[in-house]
Amino acid sequence: MTDAPKDIESLIEVMARLPGLGPRSARRAVLHLIKRRGQLMRPLAEAMTRVADTARECLNCGNIGTADLCPICSDDRRANGQICVVEDVADLWAMERGGAFQGRYHVLGGTLSALDDIGPDDLRIPKLIDRVRGEGATEVILALNATVDGQTTAHYIAGEIEGLGVSVTSLAQGVPIGGELDYLDDGTISAALKARKTL
Amino acid sequence: MTDAPKDIESLIEVMARLPGLGPRSARRAVLHLIKRRGQLMRPLAEAMTRVADTARECLNCGNIGTADLCPICSDDRRANGQICVVEDVADLWAMERGGAFQGRYHVLGGTLSALDDIGPDDLRIPKLIDRVRGEGATEVILALNATVDGQTTAHYIAGEIEGLGVSVTSLAQGVPIGGELDYLDDGTISAALKARKTL
Repeated sequence: MTDAPKDIESLIEVMARLPGLGPRSARRAVLHLIKRRGQLMRPLAEAMTRVADTARECLNCGNIGTADLCPICSDDRRANGQICVVEDVADLWAMERGGAFQGRYHVLGGTLSALDDIGPDDLRIPKLIDRVRGEGATEVILALNATVDGQTTAHYIAGEIEGLGVSVTSLAQGVPIGGELDYLDDGTISAALKARKTL
Repeated sequence: MTDAPKDIESLIEVMARLPGLGPRSARRAVLHLIKRRGQLMRPLAEAMTRVADTARECLNCGNIGTADLCPICSDDRRANGQICVVEDVADLWAMERGGAFQGRYHVLGGTLSALDDIGPDDLRIPKLIDRVRGEGATEVILALNATVDGQTTAHYIAGEIEGLGVSVTSLAQGVPIGGELDYLDDGTISAALKARKTL
């Protein structure tokens, strides 16, 4: 309830459903937009319509693109036999920003979760098995989040792929670059100690 | 940089310019929207276009509405001689949610600020003086934020209105409803003590 005109009221309601915005910040954002109708609000509405018209999920890996196959899946130079499994498109973008991975991705679309009743068929796990077989993959890199659900999902996938003759790896755990020991949790320090390397 | 398609990239850039959203939360919001293209993204773009087409500032008070005069300025029942001066439309909405004020508003559009070089003519202060004279106001209630700039602006306006024969008041300062003394700053406690009331 803002006592604003009905159109503005309903815009605020829709904005408040975005992650990271609540009713109060949605009101602030809408007022900000209204004050900048020409320079910000219209371009934003147009950009949104354009993306809504063109964006779709890659049929192969689940990445967001504008065609049936995403730019990575249609780039032959990235068919190096490595498939990096991530939970979400945001994780794929994060990996790409790193710039260290030259293979292809597979976006699961979430993690297994008994609590939320999400099983393997609700994710892109069957499609991953198909790809490992069909694309002649040599390595599956599990880049799932270091959460309980993420690790459960990683173990499940490792079990499914076992016997297909590909190596299954996961991201190293340890001290982040620039990380200070005093600020790290005990689990990370233990993991980094266990995985210590000879210099 | 997200390595997302160009349209999505530019949508993220525009989203990141909203208050309360940074590059990371803009990426999350855009992914959320893309996953809900039909139910959320298109309605949001349409609501935005509609508001961009219709919203405008009330010529009298600066409130946001869809006509030359906002619903409050065109409601004769609210012409009770009281004008409540607020910094921003968001403050007007907050007052209206309270539901206790039955008069009209005047939105300054900011506060005086030597630092940002904002003088009386950059705000709606001359228009306020005109209204006090023209509408036969009996009371001007200064509902400005309890910040240094807000209080400076309040004093300036009080000085300008002095001699026009209207009473100038400001919101009471004190302990918020439900507030715990232990969590209040010293200034608020001092103000509440000074303004103590006989029960």
